[in-house]
Amino acid sequence: MSSRATTHFDAGELPMMKIYDFPTGPYPTRVRIALAEKNLQSCAQFEMVDLYKGEHKKPEFIANKNYSGTLPVLELNDGTCIAECTAITEYLDGLDGIPTLTGRTPREKGMIHMMSKRAELELLDAISVYFHHGTPGLGPDVELYQNPEWGFRQRDKALRGMHYFDTVLKAQPFVAGDTFSMADITVIGGLVFSGIVNLSVPAECKALLAWYARMQERPSVKDQPAILWLNGQALPS
Amino acid sequence: MSSRATTHFDAGELPMMKIYDFPTGPYPTRVRIALAEKNLQSCAQFEMVDLYKGEHKKPEFIANKNYSGTLPVLELNDGTCIAECTAITEYLDGLDGIPTLTGRTPREKGMIHMMSKRAELELLDAISVYFHHGTPGLGPDVELYQNPEWGFRQRDKALRGMHYFDTVLKAQPFVAGDTFSMADITVIGGLVFSGIVNLSVPAECKALLAWYARMQERPSVKDQPAILWLNGQALPS
Repeated sequence: MSSRATTHFDAGELPMMKIYDFPTGPYPTRVRIALAEKNLQSCAQFEMVDLYKGEHKKPEFIANKNYSGTLPVLELNDGTCIAECTAITEYLDGLDGIPTLTGRTPREKGMIHMMSKRAELELLDAISVYFHHGTPGLGPDVELYQNPEWGFRQRDKALRGMHYFDTVLKAQPFVAGDTFSMADITVIGGLVFSGIVNLSVPAECKALLAWYARMQERPSVKDQPAILWLNGQALPS
Repeated sequence: MSSRATTHFDAGELPMMKIYDFPTGPYPTRVRIALAEKNLQSCAQFEMVDLYKGEHKKPEFIANKNYSGTLPVLELNDGTCIAECTAITEYLDGLDGIPTLTGRTPREKGMIHMMSKRAELELLDAISVYFHHGTPGLGPDVELYQNPEWGFRQRDKALRGMHYFDTVLKAQPFVAGDTFSMADITVIGGLVFSGIVNLSVPAECKALLAWYARMQERPSVKDQPAILWLNGQALPS
């Protein structure tokens, strides 16, 4: 059910793109997976922005790369910057004219965008808020304001979200239906972040755990720095 | 610059869609504008879900329509529900094969999705959090938990967001570039919500105010219940 036509597309024809990145970050991992799914890694040059040094909150980065002060950001060779994982995925997915990640029909697009947004709201973004507000996060030099009560509520929301996605994955093989999509990538980002903050997926969420095990076998996922690191393996140099 | 080909598409061929709606709500207004831009109003049957009675938080609504308990939701005639404004807009925009709102090229798609998400993060969603946490919101029967400090911070974020979009609109006629798009609709949603919570756009944001005045002259925008209501005009019966 996950089979699909191989992309017949010469990535070598594309100009190089720059990606402002933090290799083990959950959001950067989403774009890294999208690049690998589209066989576009050879067109991407990664530039490290150190989250723990707050480099993404520096005025130059905010003025020139991303007003919202987040990673990842894709910079085209004319200097145009595209921030936000969904936007970057839409860009990358359209390059070969075969949108395998974001959907081909109106219905596919609607379902994928809904489930990806829901994975942000109910899982990934909720864990991010917990990390930044309910834990030491990126440390006192970067976390200049914390609202722990809000952080803990978002943690609890994410735990409910895990049960929701477990129910979804009991009924269908992928988050948005019968095929792998951007929505799966977003849930993977959520579970990467849950690993970072030690918020375990409850053992009773068997369908979610089985899906995540399958996802970690995908070529686009298994060698990602965040996955290797969480599994206790050495990062590629 | 906002001119574009008329959609040659017979909306009468489409099955009816149901939209769970609250007519003056900022998020429902986004989908109402998208429907009007696509000339699809005649295919949509609206069903009122009373936010002030908390009908969107009822277990049946959450179980059957939208896990996240928000409006609007689009229901197809086979019962499939698509929630989230961006997802609904992707669905509607693709029906005629002429995606005027969400972009045609990878670059357009990337820029529109980035700017629309940024309008959510920095304006519309921030004002929504302020409404639900820093004001009485939907009233004590619906707002079962409030975090006023978080609400006030989001209000301040939205004020900064207004200055950001003012800067954007000094340099280009529409939020994502040279043509009207989903990103403009999202900022309109933000300014509708700012009107509801009496968070005025600062007078020095002249480009944003001029753009909003232009937007309120668009046929898809000017007769929306939220716009009529905020301008002190009678709602259509």
